[in-house]
Amino acid sequence: MSDSLRVGVAGVGTVGAAVTRLLARQADALASRTGRKIVVTAVSARDPGKERDADLKGCEFFADPVALAASPKIDLFVELIGGAEGPARTSVETALAHGKSVVTANKALLAAHGLELAALAEEKHVALAFEASVAGGIPIVKTLREGLAGNSIERVYGILNGTCNYILSRMEREQLSFEQCLAEAQKLGYAEADPTFDIGGFDTAHKLSILTSLAFGVRIAPEAIDIEGIERVSLADIAAAGELGFRIKLLGVAQRTAEGVEQRVHPTMVRKTTPIAEVMGVLNAVTIDADAVHELTLVGPGAGGEATASAVVADIADIAKGVRSAPFGVPTAALGELRRAPTRHHEGGYYIRLSVPDVPGAFAGIATRMAERGISLESIMQHGGARRSADRADQGHAAGEALRSVILITHATSEYLVREALDAIYADGVIDAPAQVIRIERE
Amino acid sequence: MSDSLRVGVAGVGTVGAAVTRLLARQADALASRTGRKIVVTAVSARDPGKERDADLKGCEFFADPVALAASPKIDLFVELIGGAEGPARTSVETALAHGKSVVTANKALLAAHGLELAALAEEKHVALAFEASVAGGIPIVKTLREGLAGNSIERVYGILNGTCNYILSRMEREQLSFEQCLAEAQKLGYAEADPTFDIGGFDTAHKLSILTSLAFGVRIAPEAIDIEGIERVSLADIAAAGELGFRIKLLGVAQRTAEGVEQRVHPTMVRKTTPIAEVMGVLNAVTIDADAVHELTLVGPGAGGEATASAVVADIADIAKGVRSAPFGVPTAALGELRRAPTRHHEGGYYIRLSVPDVPGAFAGIATRMAERGISLESIMQHGGARRSADRADQGHAAGEALRSVILITHATSEYLVREALDAIYADGVIDAPAQVIRIERE
Repeated sequence: MSDSLRVGVAGVGTVGAAVTRLLARQADALASRTGRKIVVTAVSARDPGKERDADLKGCEFFADPVALAASPKIDLFVELIGGAEGPARTSVETALAHGKSVVTANKALLAAHGLELAALAEEKHVALAFEASVAGGIPIVKTLREGLAGNSIERVYGILNGTCNYILSRMEREQLSFEQCLAEAQKLGYAEADPTFDIGGFDTAHKLSILTSLAFGVRIAPEAIDIEGIERVSLADIAAAGELGFRIKLLGVAQRTAEGVEQRVHPTMVRKTTPIAEVMGVLNAVTIDADAVHELTLVGPGAGGEATASAVVADIADIAKGVRSAPFGVPTAALGELRRAPTRHHEGGYYIRLSVPDVPGAFAGIATRMAERGISLESIMQHGGARRSADRADQGHAAGEALRSVILITHATSEYLVREALDAIYADGVIDAPAQVIRIERE
Repeated sequence: MSDSLRVGVAGVGTVGAAVTRLLARQADALASRTGRKIVVTAVSARDPGKERDADLKGCEFFADPVALAASPKIDLFVELIGGAEGPARTSVETALAHGKSVVTANKALLAAHGLELAALAEEKHVALAFEASVAGGIPIVKTLREGLAGNSIERVYGILNGTCNYILSRMEREQLSFEQCLAEAQKLGYAEADPTFDIGGFDTAHKLSILTSLAFGVRIAPEAIDIEGIERVSLADIAAAGELGFRIKLLGVAQRTAEGVEQRVHPTMVRKTTPIAEVMGVLNAVTIDADAVHELTLVGPGAGGEATASAVVADIADIAKGVRSAPFGVPTAALGELRRAPTRHHEGGYYIRLSVPDVPGAFAGIATRMAERGISLESIMQHGGARRSADRADQGHAAGEALRSVILITHATSEYLVREALDAIYADGVIDAPAQVIRIERE
């Protein structure tokens, strides 16, 4: 058996503690699998005295992760600090510069600096592995980088944020408002005190940028993502989606088009019969469309200490075996520039919910504006009943006038045509509140 | 860039032709990923003149796959001949003995001789890779061997035969009989002229034996699998399952228990809300329960030329990169002996369908026999109406006496208790046809 692999873990919170537990629990199996003993010899933490669910006896303690990264007593550096800058970035750079392989779960760091770090790892002939950075315990990085090596990928999309999926699932199941579900998620620890990063779609966008690079062999470009969060999804939308055979999910989607690569994060209608539509609660899921394998879906836990640690340990085991894949599948220099396909050219179906006054001709006017742009409708659903409130009466309609909720599902069309049609409808003055528009992801 | 990897493909049918097409189509990407050119330099086929959907210009043709396997002009041998013995076995042995890595899609060969072949590969320091042998394009071998290296696996189960899943899906969707759906499947090429191997569960068993070895680090033991096919699944069962919130799937299940490892292939009730229950048609799916990752499900195409080729090419790419994993995750010598946990000790819920005469006390007698063995019932469903046919009147009941279909769902209990209760019920003479018993797989 070769020499032991000496691992240094920076950050021993929930995930870091779980990594040390897994490495200890599976020590014999990992030695058998990799041909080497894997030993955590050092850790860094802000508070070395803190009570932890991990046996760190015999580990050297560092207050400074950068000092740990530079220590000649470790062969592999595990970064679990978080954040795109500061000690996370500096310590990873330091470890790579010292010729140590790095395993990280830090999607923000990768989205911001993944390419420079990958280039540095290549230059030093060490590994930079980040399975845990996307979709927690789901081995999606390995699947894209190795498992589908013979495929040309057309599209990769998924539920990449458990907080959003938990909120949307609860809204549907229990008919609770977004605000109620968010408060529950915060109480259960599924959402942060400031939930913007999750519910605004930014966490999903970081992860999507990594998947895009792996799937299409292009440079990471998080700035080329159109991002919408789930804040404006209403119970009315969820109910209407259900009636029409859809479910609403916050998806990250990267898709190859004639113009380049579309990267989008937004609430999306998915048909209930698709595997991804059935993924409820805090689970994550990723679907890949590729020329040879056609369609592959992976479903599993997107977060949690042990699930994330599972991905970290798999990376450590590969490195212990001597596997050295290029971090993004191909050498960094071979990654192409991402050509951004504008979302306004996106082709797809649309869900459009409008509050239409119950007066003769109102709906005909809307339908005409759609037809003028060649937008054909797959279905039309009306829900009657809400009375226009008095505080909107100043916008040209009488208080108390009846409003109908009209839901349109379009056949595949171009996004800019939908936007133009809606602008024309607004200009007609028929409706006085903006339409709710949700993209439908094709199967 | 290193020297080219020279690949010999034995068998250029649907999968073999797709492998050569993928390698050509993705030549540049694969070279970039692996650092080497991958070139098919030779093939073997029974009929070299046959028209094929592949460009084999420049390939040397061998009539004998064993001669191809021994050829000094190839570095890697791809076996796509099929069958546990004969040329498939001899050619794989020859290639390994000559120090060439082997990629195969041959589950029958692996189930029968996988361990000897793995030991030979280890001795020669070459790879034996078989991603395509289980669940076609789904990267389940890589996931078990590498992606979950830090986990202790509790259970692995899946839909591993597309033919069976197609038949069960159509029976449910279109209310067609097993025989009708089988005939359709044969017409569409999803089932063989002799369908026994698929519908009898034997194909699933071969694949399960490979997953069991990978998941639990034990020697392949296909003889230790209890196998039931789907022939006796009726529309009545499918309808009752649906009413109770279940779907019937042919599953292969390998589960760690206190007594060892249970390996079972049988029609199974799965709850409709689980990811695997939603997998319809010819798709495959595998779910893994493990201590760290909790639950992971992979869904994708289990067969088809290009999907299977996707898995073959991923194996080739790993070998081109120099990755050398032990074929079954750990060195063959470290694989434990599989201790067979008897299915009669299986603990789980049961679906039991009985035809009960509509006479006072009949059901009470059945319920008593269950209660005597501590079997508690989660639900009871009755469907009335069928008249006992005259040809069964000789068994002690009057012709024309009404029969009710009674469906029992038990809480978790032991299989031998269920069997004992049924034997007691049969001995009571209350019912005159054997009960239909289907295991419920827990979530």
